[in-house]
Amino acid sequence: MIPQWIIEKKRDGHALSDEEIKFWIKGYTDGSIPDYQMAALAMAIYFKGMELPEISALTDAMMNSGSIVDTSSIGRYKADKHSTGGIGDKVSLILAPLVACCGIAIPMISGRGLGITGGTLDKMESISGYRTDLSIPEFLKVVDKCGCSIIGQTLDLAPADKKLYALRDVTGTVPSIPLISASIMSKKLAEGMNGLVLDIKHGNGAFMQTQEDAEALAKTMVGIGKNMGKGMTAVLTDMNQPLGRTAGNALEVVETIEALQGNGAPDLIEVTLTLSAQMLLLAEKADNLNEAITILQDHLDSGRAFEKFLQMIEMHGGDTKVINNPQLLPKANITHKYLATQTGYISQISAEKVGRACLELDAGRRAVTDKIDYAVGISDIHKIGDTVTHGDTIMTIHANNQQKLEMAIKELDTGIIISEEKPTTPTLIGKTIK
Amino acid sequence: MIPQWIIEKKRDGHALSDEEIKFWIKGYTDGSIPDYQMAALAMAIYFKGMELPEISALTDAMMNSGSIVDTSSIGRYKADKHSTGGIGDKVSLILAPLVACCGIAIPMISGRGLGITGGTLDKMESISGYRTDLSIPEFLKVVDKCGCSIIGQTLDLAPADKKLYALRDVTGTVPSIPLISASIMSKKLAEGMNGLVLDIKHGNGAFMQTQEDAEALAKTMVGIGKNMGKGMTAVLTDMNQPLGRTAGNALEVVETIEALQGNGAPDLIEVTLTLSAQMLLLAEKADNLNEAITILQDHLDSGRAFEKFLQMIEMHGGDTKVINNPQLLPKANITHKYLATQTGYISQISAEKVGRACLELDAGRRAVTDKIDYAVGISDIHKIGDTVTHGDTIMTIHANNQQKLEMAIKELDTGIIISEEKPTTPTLIGKTIK
Repeated sequence: MIPQWIIEKKRDGHALSDEEIKFWIKGYTDGSIPDYQMAALAMAIYFKGMELPEISALTDAMMNSGSIVDTSSIGRYKADKHSTGGIGDKVSLILAPLVACCGIAIPMISGRGLGITGGTLDKMESISGYRTDLSIPEFLKVVDKCGCSIIGQTLDLAPADKKLYALRDVTGTVPSIPLISASIMSKKLAEGMNGLVLDIKHGNGAFMQTQEDAEALAKTMVGIGKNMGKGMTAVLTDMNQPLGRTAGNALEVVETIEALQGNGAPDLIEVTLTLSAQMLLLAEKADNLNEAITILQDHLDSGRAFEKFLQMIEMHGGDTKVINNPQLLPKANITHKYLATQTGYISQISAEKVGRACLELDAGRRAVTDKIDYAVGISDIHKIGDTVTHGDTIMTIHANNQQKLEMAIKELDTGIIISEEKPTTPTLIGKTIK
Repeated sequence: MIPQWIIEKKRDGHALSDEEIKFWIKGYTDGSIPDYQMAALAMAIYFKGMELPEISALTDAMMNSGSIVDTSSIGRYKADKHSTGGIGDKVSLILAPLVACCGIAIPMISGRGLGITGGTLDKMESISGYRTDLSIPEFLKVVDKCGCSIIGQTLDLAPADKKLYALRDVTGTVPSIPLISASIMSKKLAEGMNGLVLDIKHGNGAFMQTQEDAEALAKTMVGIGKNMGKGMTAVLTDMNQPLGRTAGNALEVVETIEALQGNGAPDLIEVTLTLSAQMLLLAEKADNLNEAITILQDHLDSGRAFEKFLQMIEMHGGDTKVINNPQLLPKANITHKYLATQTGYISQISAEKVGRACLELDAGRRAVTDKIDYAVGISDIHKIGDTVTHGDTIMTIHANNQQKLEMAIKELDTGIIISEEKPTTPTLIGKTIK
C-alpha cells in the first residue's frame, strides 16, 4: 500500500478499508509513515469525515498499538465512566465508590487537567499520600478487593493516539469528531471494561459548544464501543455553568465528601445518579432507571458509599484522617468573597470564565508540565436562576497570591450576569444515547 | 505568529495575510516550520483554495526564498514561454530562435521530463555536445549575443518550492491550482523576464484534463504575473493527441529542424506561431496578431530562424553537423511500423497512451533519477480525422529493445481508435487569457 494513495482516497471522499487503516496506524506507530503524511491525512479527515466502520477500525488499530489491561482476573462486570471534561466535575470521585457498592467493578484510569478542564487525578492527589501510580497488578488487586480504583495511565496505552494527539494539536486537526472519538475510545477501550458510560458535556465550559455537536460525538462514540462489543450509554449534560458548588482540586474533594455524606448539591447528585444508574442498567443490576436510582440512593443515604470511598483512599495509601476531617486538606491563604453588585436573578455564571479564573489561581495547567496548587479554587458557587441581593456572596475565591486573585476576579467579572428578569435555566440532563 | 493558528485560519476558509505567508515560507525554508505543519496547510489549501493576492504573496515568498537571475545587463525586452507539459511538445526549440530573430531576448531555463511529459532539456541534450549547464554569466552572454539560450536550472531558484513540491508529491496535495500556480510562477519569475507566455494544455495527455481547469489555472497564473508587474498572456491548447508528428527526444529534434526548414506539421507550426506572436505583442514588436504572424512567418521562410537555432547550438558547444545532417542524431536499432487494422477515420490517438508508450521505450523517466534513451520514441504520427486504409502505417515506433517495443505496442493498442464515421477533431487553439 502506498501512503499517498490512502491520503488521496480520503481527500476524494472515499471510505478507507480496515486493511488501509491498520497499515496506516502500524506504519505511523513504527515511524515508517512520517508525521507529514499523518498530518495531511488528518486534515483530509477533518474535511471529509469518516464513516463509523472506519472510525471503529481506527480506534481498534490505535488501541492495539500498545498494551491492553487484562482485567480477566476480576469476575464481576467491569464498567467505567468517561466525561469529555468540564468545570467542577467531581462526578467520578462519587460514582466510583457508589457503583462499586452495587457489585460492579470500576477500574478507572483517569487523566490530569489541562486548560480550563479539571482532571480527576489532580483531585485525588490533593489527598495526602494517595498513590495514582499503582502498578497494574496493584490496581487490579484494589479493584478486586474494594470494587473501585482510580489511577493514572502507567502502562503504554494506545501510543499511536499519544503521537497523533500531539500532532493534531499543532496541525489544526483537533476539532474532528472521528479523530476525537477514536482518540478517547482507543485509550478507554484498552482498559478492558465490559461497559462504558459517557458524559458528553456541551456549553461554554465544554469542548463541544452546542448540543448538536455533543450529540454527534456521543453517537459516534457509542457506535464505536458497540462495534467493539461493549455495553455503551452516553448522556448529554449541560456545562454552561459549573457542576456543583466548587471548582478547584481540594475544594472538590471537600464537596465530594459532603455529597457522600448526604449533603450534595442537587445538580451534582442528579448527574452522578443518572450516570451511575446507566451503569447499573448496562450491568443488569436493575430493570429500569427508577429502580437503579432507588438502589443508588440507598447506598448514599446509608453511608456505604462513603465507607467505600474511605476504603479506596486507604488502599491507595491516602490519609483517611483528611477525609474524616476535611479541614486538614490543603487550604489557601486568602479567601475572598465575590459579591453581587446588584439585586436580581443570576442569569449567567459562565463555566468557561470560572474555569479561566481557576486557571489564573493555578488550580489548573496551561501546559502539561505546569505545577498546580491543590488548595486554590472557588467555592459556594451559586446557580443560574438563584436570587441574590446587592452585597450577597455569589462565590468565594481561594487564592495564595493577591495578584492571581485579582486576575481571577477580572475573569469572573466578564462571566457573571445578574438580571431583573427571571432567566430560563439550562436543562441539566439532556438526551440519553444508547 | 503561531503556525497552527495560520493552519486553522486557512482551514476555516479565511484569507492569509502577506505577513502570514511570508512568515510561513521563511519558516518552512529555514526548517523552523516542520514538514508536518506544511502538509496540513497544503491540505487545507487544497480544500479551501486561495485568493489571488494570497497566491501572489505565496509566489513572491517562494521566489525570494532563493536566487533571482539578474538579467539587467540585457537591454532588450526579455520574454519566456512556459508550457504545462505535453506529448510531442517541441515548441520551445522552434520558438526560442524564431522570436530571438525579432529582437526579443529569450533567456529560457527549462526542465527535464517526468512521467509521460517530455522535457525541453532532454531534447536539447540529444544533440551531441550541447551544454545545458552554462553558468549564469555564460548564459547571459549567449542570450546577449545570440538572442536566445536554453539551459537547465543551475542556480538555487525557489528552494522553498523545491521542498514543497517534493512534500506535495507524497501528501496528496499536488492537484491544487493555488499551489500549482505558485510553484510554476515562483521558479519562472526568478528568471527575471519582462513578459511570459503560457501554454496551458488540456486533454488526456495534459496535467489539466478539462478546459475549465486549464482556464482556471491560466487565469490564476496570468493574475500572479500581472500582480508582479510582468506582461502575461496564456493560451489554452489541446493535448488530446500528440503535438506534431513525433514524440521522443532525438526524433523531436529532427522534427524541429524540419519545422525550421519550412516543413513543419501544421498543428506544431500553428501552436508555435500563436505563442510566438503573443510574445511579439507583449514586447510591442507588432500591433496585432496577424502582423506578428507575418513577421514570424518571414523569419521561418527566409531560413533566419534556422540560422539562429544553429548559432544557439554552436554557442552551447553543440555539434552543428548533426543539425545540418539529422541522420547523425542518436538512432534506435529497431523501427516498427504500427499499422491500421481497419479502414476508416482515426477518431482517437491518445496523447496519454503515446506518452506511456514512449515511457515504456525509455524515452522518458518514471523517477527523476532514471536514465533516458535519446534515440527511442515514435515518429510519423497521424492526426485525428486522418483517413487510413487497412495496413497503412499510423506511426513508426523506434525502440532499442524488443520487449520494451511490445510493451509500447500494448499501450498504443488501447489508445488508437479507427471508426467509420468522420470524427470531430479537437480544437487546437482555445481561449487567450491576458
